[in-house]
Amino acid sequence: MAVREHKLINNPENLIDEMLEGFCAAYADILLCGDNRLVMRAEPKVAGKVGLLMGSGSGHEPAMLGWVGEGLFDVVVAGEVFAAPGPENMLAGVRAADRGGGVLICVSHHAGDLLNAELTLEFCEIEGIDDVDMVLLYDDISSAPKGREAERRGTAGLFSVWKMLGAFCEGDADLAAAKALAEKVRDNTRSLAVSLSSCASPMTGEAMFEMGADEMEIGMGLHGELGMGRQKALGADATIDLLLPPLLEDLPYRAGDEVIVLLNSSGSLTLMELFILYRRAAARLSEAGVSVYRSWIGQYATTLETAGFALALCRVDEQLKALWDAPANGAYMKQL
Amino acid sequence: MAVREHKLINNPENLIDEMLEGFCAAYADILLCGDNRLVMRAEPKVAGKVGLLMGSGSGHEPAMLGWVGEGLFDVVVAGEVFAAPGPENMLAGVRAADRGGGVLICVSHHAGDLLNAELTLEFCEIEGIDDVDMVLLYDDISSAPKGREAERRGTAGLFSVWKMLGAFCEGDADLAAAKALAEKVRDNTRSLAVSLSSCASPMTGEAMFEMGADEMEIGMGLHGELGMGRQKALGADATIDLLLPPLLEDLPYRAGDEVIVLLNSSGSLTLMELFILYRRAAARLSEAGVSVYRSWIGQYATTLETAGFALALCRVDEQLKALWDAPANGAYMKQL
Repeated sequence: MAVREHKLINNPENLIDEMLEGFCAAYADILLCGDNRLVMRAEPKVAGKVGLLMGSGSGHEPAMLGWVGEGLFDVVVAGEVFAAPGPENMLAGVRAADRGGGVLICVSHHAGDLLNAELTLEFCEIEGIDDVDMVLLYDDISSAPKGREAERRGTAGLFSVWKMLGAFCEGDADLAAAKALAEKVRDNTRSLAVSLSSCASPMTGEAMFEMGADEMEIGMGLHGELGMGRQKALGADATIDLLLPPLLEDLPYRAGDEVIVLLNSSGSLTLMELFILYRRAAARLSEAGVSVYRSWIGQYATTLETAGFALALCRVDEQLKALWDAPANGAYMKQL
Repeated sequence: MAVREHKLINNPENLIDEMLEGFCAAYADILLCGDNRLVMRAEPKVAGKVGLLMGSGSGHEPAMLGWVGEGLFDVVVAGEVFAAPGPENMLAGVRAADRGGGVLICVSHHAGDLLNAELTLEFCEIEGIDDVDMVLLYDDISSAPKGREAERRGTAGLFSVWKMLGAFCEGDADLAAAKALAEKVRDNTRSLAVSLSSCASPMTGEAMFEMGADEMEIGMGLHGELGMGRQKALGADATIDLLLPPLLEDLPYRAGDEVIVLLNSSGSLTLMELFILYRRAAARLSEAGVSVYRSWIGQYATTLETAGFALALCRVDEQLKALWDAPANGAYMKQL
């Protein structure tokens, strides 16, 4: 399928800085933008809280910029398109996120993100900043088999971690407890994605990869990484019937479990399609005896204008349900 | 540009009912769905309030389903793709929206929507329901010249009306006051849209219209209606520089005015592009002495997966600012 080559941008060299300038101008009531491509909570610092920091390649908007704010991240550092920010900018992020309770760096598992987070910790050590740690997060079951979970990629399912960890760190949690909570949510979360089209690079206008009009790829990563393979594109119900069994079997999610369901659009899949997909997912979960506590359907982590979606499940207990329902006020995540 | 022909749907004949079933299952905590394709607020009825009702063709999600809830619509009636619901279903909507304070039918100006609203009022008269009225709403400056505002189309800029009118009707307003408030917001609102691509009909898989890869159309309506004409596609800043002057001159918006800015994605335009567009719009508004009270950037009223956007301005006074900031809790509009 042909991609849209013309983008409403200016000089591609200024892409990220112009995007941040517009974003921060629009949401100046809740955000501050700093040097080193930092996006920070605008409200007065909460003394003593664990500071939550994440670096992220751009092109996944509203992730991660949209999750900075009350009950969410303290600081997000924006990288180039699909490329994690380097350790200099991340070090500036650590300093900005420090509220006196240490800083936790969240890493969505990709080689570049992990490498830069490790370098950032080394920079911190050199600078004498010792109250900082990182947590490695992953959810995509297509990227490594069961038993090798720590090799899996981080994708849209991690939204559950951001939301619950953000709420947890509004309380009096310490750094070790925050890391343990992030790992708990991660270990209860699984996702699997499908793509129907590529997207075009805003730098070159070229398609990121080729995809036939009647094809779909199961398990594609957030940057077009290969998944479990291509096949003929299916209808909505048949697609859910293909994704849900391996997802349920992986954790496994069992009868009696309660889950939060996230249906994430990669960009140009319509809400109409997502609602039709959700209808089948809800029916199949009900048949399996898994009950749905909350559902979130929309654009959480995109791959520019790719047509596709991810289905993510997060098993919740009373603690996680309360953290999910706690208030949040990011530009693209508002919880009443 | 080729459109994505394969949709993640099932039998197109069941499209709307399956969409509503999935939507209502996902948001059962705030919504109820009824016969006649009604989507209704789930919370106990507020006795005596003006009931807000709207019928809307489907394919614009999250509009209008996403604006049902506290501080927003009482009832939305879903139509077929891009076609307003008929008067039988609208009459059921009037009955469901009646909280004892009369019912106001909001009409986004298109021939089918207006005709069906007028028929609904006739049905109401036959049924002896007399505490019901309609208000005709429009915002798109490309669809008729200044001085003939009432001939203009209703498009994404009307989001300002939905938000403020919804908040207004949570108070003790009567039907006449509600209609006057809707007209006040409408008369302060103007929008202008741009499209870069078509979308495919979910019924046929065919493109709704043809668009070259290097073309853009200024002033296209929500259903692909022709606007001011086609031209070579421009960059972000040049596009804003083309849209903003006629928009400012139309009302006119003057130095010293305060406005709410809405940048609405028609479907597959990315947030990255919208933020870059917003950057220029904010700078140009500042040069014109127009100050921005709030900005909203995202998908409010889509045309399936069309790549395009609308820029809308709503001039606000203290009353409208308070109504904008009042709480709201729809599935796709949460105001803290």
